[in-house]
Amino acid sequence: MTSDLLDELIDALRCLPGVGPKSAQRMALHLLQRDRSGGRRLGEALGGAMERVGSCRQCRIFTEGELCRWCRDPARDASKVCIVENPADVLAIERATDYDGQFFLLLGNLSPLDGVGPKDLGLDRLQERVESGDVQEVTLATSPTIEGQATASYITDLLVTRGVTVLQIARGMPVGSELEFVDGGTLSVAFAHRTAVH
Amino acid sequence: MTSDLLDELIDALRCLPGVGPKSAQRMALHLLQRDRSGGRRLGEALGGAMERVGSCRQCRIFTEGELCRWCRDPARDASKVCIVENPADVLAIERATDYDGQFFLLLGNLSPLDGVGPKDLGLDRLQERVESGDVQEVTLATSPTIEGQATASYITDLLVTRGVTVLQIARGMPVGSELEFVDGGTLSVAFAHRTAVH
Repeated sequence: MTSDLLDELIDALRCLPGVGPKSAQRMALHLLQRDRSGGRRLGEALGGAMERVGSCRQCRIFTEGELCRWCRDPARDASKVCIVENPADVLAIERATDYDGQFFLLLGNLSPLDGVGPKDLGLDRLQERVESGDVQEVTLATSPTIEGQATASYITDLLVTRGVTVLQIARGMPVGSELEFVDGGTLSVAFAHRTAVH
Repeated sequence: MTSDLLDELIDALRCLPGVGPKSAQRMALHLLQRDRSGGRRLGEALGGAMERVGSCRQCRIFTEGELCRWCRDPARDASKVCIVENPADVLAIERATDYDGQFFLLLGNLSPLDGVGPKDLGLDRLQERVESGDVQEVTLATSPTIEGQATASYITDLLVTRGVTVLQIARGMPVGSELEFVDGGTLSVAFAHRTAVH
């Protein structure tokens, strides 16, 4: 563009997912023309977050401290661990359920082809935590995809020998869905796991 | 989310045009999980650009120095000024034409209803520059929209009395377009301004 710093900003903006050269240019010009204070604030927030946000020592949730707010909270039941793929899943569970235990964040799924092994998901840390003896119940809340299911199976194999109860969140009809529009896989699972009503 | 700094980052990302709460969350998590060095670099680029990128004293193009690279360049003809709306227009003209004069950047269009007057477009500075006597030819390259045309008319009125030649880039059929698909307005202009072929 017209200035080296502006070129550098446009180039740096492309590290954001979904931002190509055209959007990066539009974003940079927008900030310079109309929202310098927003741009300054974003720069500071990025600096702060990239330097100081780490992972909880126990559950890998993003946090500034050594332990995340759930692992720190004495009101949460430390004998229960819920295993999720993404940070957003933690919040979704918090919003929708009355789960009162702690979490463990995988940040992905097992994928040998992409070089993602058990250590990359922190499963060695999870195993240590279970072996330390406090954990009695593990809930698998990975996504019902092939990758999520494979990861869940691996974790189940890892933990059942250690005497903990391993649960998985239910698969079945989404609430509010109509039967004729639900995919065959879901319907098949829902049928296979039908439960007694009374 | 799970950490205050992360919340702050997600909130700050929303200053970018086209970024809502969901994209902001996705961007922040992507940077933290997969591209901290990119995030740090973006933070620094933002800080640098917001603090140090200013406007050229003469033509309002974004630059770190007092004068932009075109106003500084002795090879550019200072008797010619091309008036454009956006920084990207400068680059488009540089790429596509052999224009060898200088520029003047409006950064918008006259819009009394939005409170954008001649001073906001720097027209007082343009007038001074023309009155200083060096400028002999002004080319209007505002967009062929109602707002761009209104701005061009205002500038024409401002400058014709000062003895400079005021030109406007041609309106007509875009090169490569097919006649049956071109809008009526364009076709009407192209017809009205038909030129002798030989």
